[in-house]
Amino acid sequence: MSYTKTDKIPRATIQRMAMYLRTLERMGRDGVKLVSSEILAKACAVNSSQIRRDLTYFGEFGVRGVGYNIDVLIASVREALHIDRPWDCALVGVGNLGRAQLNHREFRQRQYNIVAAFDSDSAKIGQKVSGLEITDVARMRSVLAGRGVPLGIITTPPGFAQQAADCLVECGVMGVLNFAGARVFSSADVFVENVDFFNHLYALSFYISQKDRA
Amino acid sequence: MSYTKTDKIPRATIQRMAMYLRTLERMGRDGVKLVSSEILAKACAVNSSQIRRDLTYFGEFGVRGVGYNIDVLIASVREALHIDRPWDCALVGVGNLGRAQLNHREFRQRQYNIVAAFDSDSAKIGQKVSGLEITDVARMRSVLAGRGVPLGIITTPPGFAQQAADCLVECGVMGVLNFAGARVFSSADVFVENVDFFNHLYALSFYISQKDRA
Repeated sequence: MSYTKTDKIPRATIQRMAMYLRTLERMGRDGVKLVSSEILAKACAVNSSQIRRDLTYFGEFGVRGVGYNIDVLIASVREALHIDRPWDCALVGVGNLGRAQLNHREFRQRQYNIVAAFDSDSAKIGQKVSGLEITDVARMRSVLAGRGVPLGIITTPPGFAQQAADCLVECGVMGVLNFAGARVFSSADVFVENVDFFNHLYALSFYISQKDRA
Repeated sequence: MSYTKTDKIPRATIQRMAMYLRTLERMGRDGVKLVSSEILAKACAVNSSQIRRDLTYFGEFGVRGVGYNIDVLIASVREALHIDRPWDCALVGVGNLGRAQLNHREFRQRQYNIVAAFDSDSAKIGQKVSGLEITDVARMRSVLAGRGVPLGIITTPPGFAQQAADCLVECGVMGVLNFAGARVFSSADVFVENVDFFNHLYALSFYISQKDRA
């Protein structure tokens, strides 16, 4: 396929593509072989014209009306999103949240390899978590030098998130996944994604309240 | 305001409303007083007609063209989503991820009160995390009996997620926030939201790759 027909792909399209992919992967594991935009739309809770419009940014994925071979569609979306190759990550903040991420088996399964973990707590430095030794955050520059690690993961307490982001960016990281619950700011050429699950809690509250009213 | 003009509010609208609210709260903290659907749309990376369409499900929030008073809009959305009151939660699985959630200050700030924490590990039972004593999961039914806790949070290893969900639902929980990284199934009248942050990593990979190609 020819992907990226245009460079002006809206941010919302990318986030939806990632969501489509997660849903397709799940459907694939469930044994689905062929998927239409209508079925995918229902599974993703968006409308099917939106899905077709999003997919066209990346080229032609299938024959309209016939549906898509799910394995081909997954491979095409992975290629279009550039996640058909491994991505190295450096993690900062090895508290409970950091440990949970270091032990999270899906990182490696999805080819996101956490290759370094940093903390400032001398009691933690030198400990191993999931086979990875915790390194002094002060040594980040020398540890990451020349390794071209593109992604940073911030799992510090909120008050240290900006400092962690600044360190990571100084070390050449180009994208930051921020779990810290505090906003971090970066120069325009560094991408920051904030993980926030309260929208899920809000949605649950709404559904339950609606049901109570029914 | 008169909220909930219709009961047939699409799931995707609810999730977007929650996202709008998080964005509005952030803009409010940043000192914004008045917001147009165009500004909110840009901040949320959706188009403004989508935002206006979503808001109309809940009634009239502002005067088109003039923009919305941000405090009034936040209060109205909170009321519409039924999150203008406290929600009790029970958490199952006090590993690293569970501890991180128990220590997460935003739960209480947002009136999501974790009132009970369960684990099956006898080494953990009786310990306190963030002031809350860890209780044997086998005692969940007696601990939660009659308390009407509406929400469950699953932070178990993937293999225990379904069991945790079944226990919670037996105890009367109506909505489940699942961090476990394994799907859980429930009867149709229990709502499940799965927390998944890989879409953020996928988006970062894409942005970085596009930049590399530029």
